[in-house]
Amino acid sequence: MSSEVTGGNAPFAYEGLDRVIHERARLSLLTSLMTHPKGLSFGDLKQLCALTDGNLNRHLHVLEEEQMVEIVKKTERNRPLTVCRLTEAGRQRYIEYLAALEEVVQDAARVIKQQRSSGSLRSLKPSSA
Amino acid sequence: MSSEVTGGNAPFAYEGLDRVIHERARLSLLTSLMTHPKGLSFGDLKQLCALTDGNLNRHLHVLEEEQMVEIVKKTERNRPLTVCRLTEAGRQRYIEYLAALEEVVQDAARVIKQQRSSGSLRSLKPSSA
Repeated sequence: MSSEVTGGNAPFAYEGLDRVIHERARLSLLTSLMTHPKGLSFGDLKQLCALTDGNLNRHLHVLEEEQMVEIVKKTERNRPLTVCRLTEAGRQRYIEYLAALEEVVQDAARVIKQQRSSGSLRSLKPSSA
Repeated sequence: MSSEVTGGNAPFAYEGLDRVIHERARLSLLTSLMTHPKGLSFGDLKQLCALTDGNLNRHLHVLEEEQMVEIVKKTERNRPLTVCRLTEAGRQRYIEYLAALEEVVQDAARVIKQQRSSGSLRSLKPSSA
């Protein structure tokens, strides 16, 4: 599906940024579920991630297909409750994604810091090299 | 265009994750350009980000429309050279995005650390609350 070239020398390609996880709504959902290992109801997920029903369903479906989340029916105070929770595979994949994300943040934070300490960008003159 | 609800209490919505920047290829391009304030040729960008010509053009076009990058024609050693560089507005917007990205990383890193220190997820039993 991807039309990207896998270059040998592509320090900014960030191939570890798993597209399934990187999509903003799915990143929201997965981070919510990471912080709630017992699972969350659809209503809670919707609210925590500010998603519409349609988007919630669509993105949960993608994550289910990837076996990253599971929908579990349980009983709470004699009432049926359907919760969504992260699978162990989903958790592992999220952790790997996070390492790639940290790399982006570090690359960017490093250069912002350098540029701040050397004054405004506008004062940098192109070298002749 | 967005069908997302802006909730008042949506800690995981990450609305600061600007979709223009968050897309992986564009995040690669912008991070490359951040680290090369004098600009980069199309060939360099292609290689650093491992993009095809088609994807490079498509994503640069989006960033140009958003006035985040500019294409500049200059002369280097008597040869015409076209470089792409970040605009000041692009740089500011990237810095704002980065703050939102750091928030995601911190939320996730915190919970991973907590879960590691409390043992395997699988040992957590749902409470009755």
